[in-house]
Amino acid sequence: MQQKSTDKPAPLPRRQFIKGTLAATATAAVAAPAIVSSKARTRWQMVTAWPRNFPGLGTGANALANLITEMSGGRLEVQVFGAGELVGAFEIFDVVSRGTADMGHGASYYWKGKHPATQFFSAVPFGLTAQEMNAWIYQGGGYELWQKLYAQFDLIPGAAGNTGTQMGGWFNKEIHKVEDLQGLKMRMPGLGGEVLKRAGGTPVNIPGGEIFAALQAGTIDATEWVGPYNDLAFGLYKAAKYYYYPGWHEPGTTLECFVSRKSFEKLPKDLQSIVLNAIRVANLNMLSDFTARNNAALEILVNKHKVSLRRYPDEVLAKLKTLSDEVVAEIALEDPLSKEVYDSFRRFRDQAVAWNRVSEQAYVNARQV
Amino acid sequence: MQQKSTDKPAPLPRRQFIKGTLAATATAAVAAPAIVSSKARTRWQMVTAWPRNFPGLGTGANALANLITEMSGGRLEVQVFGAGELVGAFEIFDVVSRGTADMGHGASYYWKGKHPATQFFSAVPFGLTAQEMNAWIYQGGGYELWQKLYAQFDLIPGAAGNTGTQMGGWFNKEIHKVEDLQGLKMRMPGLGGEVLKRAGGTPVNIPGGEIFAALQAGTIDATEWVGPYNDLAFGLYKAAKYYYYPGWHEPGTTLECFVSRKSFEKLPKDLQSIVLNAIRVANLNMLSDFTARNNAALEILVNKHKVSLRRYPDEVLAKLKTLSDEVVAEIALEDPLSKEVYDSFRRFRDQAVAWNRVSEQAYVNARQV
Repeated sequence: MQQKSTDKPAPLPRRQFIKGTLAATATAAVAAPAIVSSKARTRWQMVTAWPRNFPGLGTGANALANLITEMSGGRLEVQVFGAGELVGAFEIFDVVSRGTADMGHGASYYWKGKHPATQFFSAVPFGLTAQEMNAWIYQGGGYELWQKLYAQFDLIPGAAGNTGTQMGGWFNKEIHKVEDLQGLKMRMPGLGGEVLKRAGGTPVNIPGGEIFAALQAGTIDATEWVGPYNDLAFGLYKAAKYYYYPGWHEPGTTLECFVSRKSFEKLPKDLQSIVLNAIRVANLNMLSDFTARNNAALEILVNKHKVSLRRYPDEVLAKLKTLSDEVVAEIALEDPLSKEVYDSFRRFRDQAVAWNRVSEQAYVNARQV
Repeated sequence: MQQKSTDKPAPLPRRQFIKGTLAATATAAVAAPAIVSSKARTRWQMVTAWPRNFPGLGTGANALANLITEMSGGRLEVQVFGAGELVGAFEIFDVVSRGTADMGHGASYYWKGKHPATQFFSAVPFGLTAQEMNAWIYQGGGYELWQKLYAQFDLIPGAAGNTGTQMGGWFNKEIHKVEDLQGLKMRMPGLGGEVLKRAGGTPVNIPGGEIFAALQAGTIDATEWVGPYNDLAFGLYKAAKYYYYPGWHEPGTTLECFVSRKSFEKLPKDLQSIVLNAIRVANLNMLSDFTARNNAALEILVNKHKVSLRRYPDEVLAKLKTLSDEVVAEIALEDPLSKEVYDSFRRFRDQAVAWNRVSEQAYVNARQV
């Protein structure tokens, strides 16, 4: 699902960022300069990495904003901006880090240039499923490490959604063996792209909105995007024959919402709790949304559009797993915090795989005997 | 995990149920008899089906109560009662239905005597996983049906936790073929027990706290309970050799929190939203708790206590699945609402299985090639 923006939005006029807290009611601003009183109305701005109302992700950000407004009885109103409306998709981290906007909605692997360890909190090739990601983050020490990492940027992180296991991608030729990846020009950014490169492929990085045209024109041979729900909306089935699974490179992609520490600290305790827990609700709701809609979209792709489903052969998956483990382990070499996060993630994954093997994995396999 | 209480708690003195709303502050009660004002302090009582502080379930109920208090800035305080403290585990539904207590925390299959359709909202043999249950409830039409069902009892339902896929159970003999279930006295209540009976076994229903002694004394030959986290705490590994998987009878058991409609309607809109969304947060948190703790507990059971893991043979699973589908389909014959719920559940399951097969199932299998 990873994307890279090529758009350079116009520089942001400073006045657009006049904070709602100050603008809302002069009385409240004067009465409570440091801590917003429990009656004051506060307005926050949420900048996102998605086009406005983008299915699943943009709509998920909207739902989160509404939820905060609703639970706070309107004391905290959150206004959502799509990518490019105030700032570009890849500027949201800096803008919220500086406290110019209050919240951001994106995916942590977009910030690997800020710190390599950010990649562990979104999607790791051959990593954790959605349920396991949540368990690691909420109960396995992941959140404490994420807080430590984002504290350097004056940000408070939160898992704000999950796509579930994504699909492997769209191809116009079948993949029978590792050699079939040789020279394959495939749109696949991030860690997955690095793995593809080591397997002999040529990863290409183009934004979501340009994928269809590139695939149809033959500029790329193959592409990954998200899953049936989003891929159907993009019409990718019109440009490629084979729909491969599973999405080894994004097995349970976690979306994020980060909050400006300065904005957060101005809130009373109950609103702080509402913000953090609304983010958790958004996390659960988005995964449910994707799970339900992917079900229905898959049926349409297969029955109506006659898409041909293909499973990556075991030999190919085994090779990609070996390469993935190498690529991910190398992140740990970059700095002590990356090593700390990698060690925690790796330890949790080993336990989670052992438990999954005798619980859900064994069950879903048994459901089909 | 299903249990049946044999305790008969003493009848509840009426005065213990003086509602917090009225008792809290005389001023607030006088000022706002119909709608509690946004400043009033309200106290609610939550009755639960679990012993106080019972790992995962009782602690999950406590966490939910605290979360409501925290997000409401103390405007709504929830006091939790363990099973038998105010009323017995299996009286909580009636007590909240009458509005004598405000909330209840349990599992909907306990109320099959009230309505057969309740069983679809907790655990169905060969039914949905935790993630699929959430998708059906939140995005697949399940919640609307659950509301319709509970409205008859003046209750508002909510999914308030999930154990994830449970284990198959503890045995002192190995199961090689369906005939090995003949005459097997196994503690397994509910729909799973009915399936076991049709497979030739003898389901026995005893409360959780008596399982260990019964298994050790040979009163029962085998038992199911929950999973490594809870089973380790009960010491079941001391009384049985073989730990079977997967838990075909409870693949993603949903816990519930139901709220008295009368109590709910007295709340202002923001507190109503806080209550309903706190229940969602509890749902996510409990599943994360079980996922993380089962990981670690499985390691202890296998490495320290040398528990022998065994997978049910395919032949046995296939037979249990056929029988399960029969037992579950029969619920639909009982009344029109049960049929409506069954049809929705069944349709969603068929789509979910097809999507899971090419997404998470394919991925977790690929993770081990």
